[in-house]
Amino acid sequence: MSNLEQGDAITPSRIAVITRAAVAEVRQAPLLMLIVFVPLVIVLEQTSPQAHTLLFAMSVCAIVPLAMLLSRATEAVSARTGDAVGGLLNATLGNLTELVISLAALPAGQYLLVKASLAGAIVTNTLFMLGGAFLFGGLKHHVQEFNRVNARFQACLLFLATVAIMVPSIISDVDQTSVVSQKLSLGLAVLLIAVYAMGMLFSLKTHRELFASASDAEEGHSSWPLTVSIVILVVVTLFVALISEIFVGSVQGAADRLGMTPAFVGFIVVALVGGAAEMTTAFSAARANRLDLSVGIALGSAAQIALFVAPILVIVSYFLGPEPMSLQFWPGAVTMMLIATMAATFLSNGGRGVWYMGVMALAVYAIFGLTLFLLPPAVPS
Amino acid sequence: MSNLEQGDAITPSRIAVITRAAVAEVRQAPLLMLIVFVPLVIVLEQTSPQAHTLLFAMSVCAIVPLAMLLSRATEAVSARTGDAVGGLLNATLGNLTELVISLAALPAGQYLLVKASLAGAIVTNTLFMLGGAFLFGGLKHHVQEFNRVNARFQACLLFLATVAIMVPSIISDVDQTSVVSQKLSLGLAVLLIAVYAMGMLFSLKTHRELFASASDAEEGHSSWPLTVSIVILVVVTLFVALISEIFVGSVQGAADRLGMTPAFVGFIVVALVGGAAEMTTAFSAARANRLDLSVGIALGSAAQIALFVAPILVIVSYFLGPEPMSLQFWPGAVTMMLIATMAATFLSNGGRGVWYMGVMALAVYAIFGLTLFLLPPAVPS
Amino acid sequence: MSNLEQGDAITPSRIAVITRAAVAEVRQAPLLMLIVFVPLVIVLEQTSPQAHTLLFAMSVCAIVPLAMLLSRATEAVSARTGDAVGGLLNATLGNLTELVISLAALPAGQYLLVKASLAGAIVTNTLFMLGGAFLFGGLKHHVQEFNRVNARFQACLLFLATVAIMVPSIISDVDQTSVVSQKLSLGLAVLLIAVYAMGMLFSLKTHRELFASASDAEEGHSSWPLTVSIVILVVVTLFVALISEIFVGSVQGAADRLGMTPAFVGFIVVALVGGAAEMTTAFSAARANRLDLSVGIALGSAAQIALFVAPILVIVSYFLGPEPMSLQFWPGAVTMMLIATMAATFLSNGGRGVWYMGVMALAVYAIFGLTLFLLPPAVPS
Repeated sequence: MSNLEQGDAITPSRIAVITRAAVAEVRQAPLLMLIVFVPLVIVLEQTSPQAHTLLFAMSVCAIVPLAMLLSRATEAVSARTGDAVGGLLNATLGNLTELVISLAALPAGQYLLVKASLAGAIVTNTLFMLGGAFLFGGLKHHVQEFNRVNARFQACLLFLATVAIMVPSIISDVDQTSVVSQKLSLGLAVLLIAVYAMGMLFSLKTHRELFASASDAEEGHSSWPLTVSIVILVVVTLFVALISEIFVGSVQGAADRLGMTPAFVGFIVVALVGGAAEMTTAFSAARANRLDLSVGIALGSAAQIALFVAPILVIVSYFLGPEPMSLQFWPGAVTMMLIATMAATFLSNGGRGVWYMGVMALAVYAIFGLTLFLLPPAVPS
Repeated sequence: MSNLEQGDAITPSRIAVITRAAVAEVRQAPLLMLIVFVPLVIVLEQTSPQAHTLLFAMSVCAIVPLAMLLSRATEAVSARTGDAVGGLLNATLGNLTELVISLAALPAGQYLLVKASLAGAIVTNTLFMLGGAFLFGGLKHHVQEFNRVNARFQACLLFLATVAIMVPSIISDVDQTSVVSQKLSLGLAVLLIAVYAMGMLFSLKTHRELFASASDAEEGHSSWPLTVSIVILVVVTLFVALISEIFVGSVQGAADRLGMTPAFVGFIVVALVGGAAEMTTAFSAARANRLDLSVGIALGSAAQIALFVAPILVIVSYFLGPEPMSLQFWPGAVTMMLIATMAATFLSNGGRGVWYMGVMALAVYAIFGLTLFLLPPAVPS
Repeated sequence: MSNLEQGDAITPSRIAVITRAAVAEVRQAPLLMLIVFVPLVIVLEQTSPQAHTLLFAMSVCAIVPLAMLLSRATEAVSARTGDAVGGLLNATLGNLTELVISLAALPAGQYLLVKASLAGAIVTNTLFMLGGAFLFGGLKHHVQEFNRVNARFQACLLFLATVAIMVPSIISDVDQTSVVSQKLSLGLAVLLIAVYAMGMLFSLKTHRELFASASDAEEGHSSWPLTVSIVILVVVTLFVALISEIFVGSVQGAADRLGMTPAFVGFIVVALVGGAAEMTTAFSAARANRLDLSVGIALGSAAQIALFVAPILVIVSYFLGPEPMSLQFWPGAVTMMLIATMAATFLSNGGRGVWYMGVMALAVYAIFGLTLFLLPPAVPS
């Protein structure tokens, strides 16, 4: 056994090291103590599943420390793999949550809920996460450089997905039979997954040098060993998925009591809490002047939902759902996705980040939020 | 009293200097003699307010020399403050006219007129003023450089305002009660003003170095002292507002006699004459190879109307109007604003100005004008 | 007579040289032997004009070698004139086919067919031809540079044409009488032709240095003399027009037998075969690392159809058609043109070509094709 392999193996002495490290982490970031809410909320959900408002509040508290752990673990991994791979890894783990929740909703045929959650995640990642990263990073650093190749690449993928969702309903004026719509959705789903797979090939293999980070930020604090980081990533992601499901189950009841419309809950609240983990990583990366990682997580996650998660769900609905799910979205959702894509294109065009770009992205998001809060759409989520 | 302060104080001897300077100005630019129409049109409006076509013609003649004076004074001020501040100052003074006219129309509840005039000013400034500046500047200079940071910044603001106006009507398929629409408009108005204020902070304070001019053009002719310039700016602006009001009062009657549709008058004629002062400045700045100033006036003025004047009017309508005014515009107006914003983005992307870019912007404007001239929209202005 | 002129004159000895060269060409590219289908299909069309499926298959076979010849001749000419002029020349010759076919359809008043063929050609050139050039070029060369000034210029022209086609139907909510629509279309047609003519002046005369090629690719194989190339260009273009007409005549019958919708045939099949000649040139130029020529042909051809061919047909319809043709297109066609324009803008923005950009453009085209194949639109072509 070589030295290197030994250094990565999990032995009792390493566990002691990890425990000491964990204590040190908590001292540095007292918010990590909120982790006690994780078992509490799981127990409460078993004992009194009707306490919606309490479950809602406690699951939000429980997600925060998990998100912080995920953030640290991703940083540690991406410190070894580079920002592009780190961003992809983080986006994938973050979207696992979306995928798990949506897969749970498929057999019941709750397609409106699934689509609202997908569209909300795309819009929230593109505008709120990207905008927040620009704002938080820009408040600390005067001007931040980032590699615009990756930003443009992800924005183009988002544009493509929006076209795939938008075109069928615009080209055809006649009412489509659901058979035609389903065939078309299946074809588009296969097309999007193929384009996404080729995109991975392009960005991680044939032209990976174009995606190198603009900034050479060094890590401020000592980072975790690779094995530890990956174990933490996987375990914490599972807990995030678990808590997220409790959160989704309680949010509607809590929202009714707090006077929020279903559209606002589906698009804004679920997406914000569901993406908390990725957001924590994206914001802290921006403050550490690693805007490439932030942009990679925000736009990469949005593109992955649009070109991978949504199409997979369409295909899986043939096996799990009561009837096949189509790729057609409510027109308001398509409009918001298109505007978010255009905003991402404008913002990432220059390859430089300043605080005001964050303000503008957040303002577009606030316009959506305000409208959804005041004007319930015809088709509720 | 220091030397510097003495040099800026207004004394009899300085008034003599100003008078001599004024005579010299008129000799250089004989069109300034049209200023005699200013008292004439004011008198005529008092004596025969029904002579619409005559008032229309005379007020156009009176606005030209005032616009030229305003242009010279702004140039003199911006020579001391830099193009970004100069452009903002000019845009603000130019839009005072819009604001004054609109405030006069609020108590009568003429919201359609107000909105048509606002949308027309945004589209005219973005396409006609910017296009004219590119064309006039490009006919004299082969290729002109300009700072695209400012152009992009203003284009992003315009995009944001267009989203704020467009989203509410698209997201909601159901007919909105006017109560919901008013609440939403008030919220959006406050949001836009806040974003605009932060934009000022960004462009004039925290990141002002990004907005420095691309070209270091020196002034060809001796410029006026700062105090004189500011006094002229204020006095002439007041006269422009006065004459503009007479113009607006007469234009509808004159248009009927000349066979123009209300939409064409509201969008094109009023906006062109109302913006004459800023246009004169923008065009002459472009010919003096100060395209930064031109772009600053054109796009800055459009953004200011969209993010400051329109929201202010929504808020003021709560106090002055018969009922609150909403931010919802006629769909055709929103479409034209969106196209104008996209055109401004395309044109300002490269940071270089050539005559053909002016032709393209003017062609888009001509398409709008031709359509409005031939096809009266369902909702007249 | 100078030496140079003698070198370009057509004498018996030169014809022998040309024949030998032709034999050499066929040896290099055996596909050129398909040229025997040219006389065959012309004969078959005279003898059995009802054999639609056979005529369809044979005319496709006949167009391939003609396209290859056209490609070689254009390369030879553009080697002497530069890529910008070469691209324009190729686009014009390619669009002569469109123009000839459309002129033949005008007297019968088949305006839907004409418009579908124009819109299909614009979308196919912008997405399929540009995307294919990026893909084929990118598979051979890692990263290709191209002059983005020309690409942006053509994309702006396309945007302008799309606005001209889109605005009239959006601004006016009321049903337009056909008289108003015809007057407006005539005005817009004159405007577009004027803008296109000024664009030629700009790109070929006043600012031609901005349009110089980014790459200095040398010709791999010996190129033909200028006179020979031009004669071949003209003769082959005539044959392409002839075969194209047979193809268009047979395609509908063949499509019915093969189960394709009229919209799919009009937009996709006719446009792909009609543009085969230009595509061959564009793709082989991309493989020869002359992406400027490819972009010039693809976008230049699309812009020429939108700003020159379509307006000319509107004007000519006053003399040849049963009633004037309008510039109004079916909304789905306008949407596809707008998306194609935006895609072209995104793709050409960076001035660099890689294989994945081709994949994305082709994916957008595939979305259109799939939708048209499965969802027949309300208004058939």
